[in-house]
Amino acid sequence: MRILGIDCGTQRTGYGVIDSDGRQHHLVDSGVIRTSPRDPLETRLLAIAAALRECRAAHRPQAVAVEQVFVAANARTALKLAHVRGVALLIVAEAGLALAEYSPLEVKMSVVGYGRAEKRQVQQMVASLLRLDSVIASEDACDALAIAICHANCAALGLKIGVKA
Amino acid sequence: MRILGIDCGTQRTGYGVIDSDGRQHHLVDSGVIRTSPRDPLETRLLAIAAALRECRAAHRPQAVAVEQVFVAANARTALKLAHVRGVALLIVAEAGLALAEYSPLEVKMSVVGYGRAEKRQVQQMVASLLRLDSVIASEDACDALAIAICHANCAALGLKIGVKA
Repeated sequence: MRILGIDCGTQRTGYGVIDSDGRQHHLVDSGVIRTSPRDPLETRLLAIAAALRECRAAHRPQAVAVEQVFVAANARTALKLAHVRGVALLIVAEAGLALAEYSPLEVKMSVVGYGRAEKRQVQQMVASLLRLDSVIASEDACDALAIAICHANCAALGLKIGVKA
Repeated sequence: MRILGIDCGTQRTGYGVIDSDGRQHHLVDSGVIRTSPRDPLETRLLAIAAALRECRAAHRPQAVAVEQVFVAANARTALKLAHVRGVALLIVAEAGLALAEYSPLEVKMSVVGYGRAEKRQVQQMVASLLRLDSVIASEDACDALAIAICHANCAALGLKIGVKA
């Protein structure tokens, strides 16, 4: 199964594509969509939509996994993030792809085995699980891969397949 | 100037199109995009995007006005709303249209002259300003028209034209 993980953000949206049989995961592509804080939000959403559509067309994933969003300490940040997330979900729905959502805790539990794992630990486990020679330098791309791996693990166990928002 | 006002919501998104010379406003179209709470969010976003694109193509507005979003009493509702708003801003940006944003207070001040006006007063003033025989029954369509009228008034005064998120 080919899985696209997306780590939404207004300034940096990470994406990661893996192939997985549920036991072994293989890196296909990963990267970061960057937008400028000097641009208005709608311009940035347009750029993110274009890049996600391009990624979707290039890799033709069978499933897409994203992180759930919460109103955390910074409510303004969460609201902006939700705008980006709305656009990401639209891109998923346009292609009729199955969507799964996981909390940050679930992602860390699934990838590192520990819900309060640090960024560095996630980077190391993602590199190890994908059998890479070095860690993925971009935190956003790495987080997106972690979300994809989390979904691969859960889908293998028959959990959360096609779970909807 | 032809203005499209959008009142975003997950269950009901109102839209209102007016022609205005800044003094007189003329109703072109208004309505409500309804989605089912039984459908997953991404399916609803897809339906809202399709309806907004249809409205944009049918009426070819020169400017679009939307309400600002705040984290109010219900943070979960605000987050869902922000997903819809992200999709609405994308539809605006796709066509390169000027976007203006107003707070609910600004809309009521501009349309009724009183920031704490009730829904009923907004409905009556919208009907009066558009010289309609009866009020617009749908609150969501009426709110969208109020946002469009607010922008027509502000644009006439040289305020907020093309103000960005």
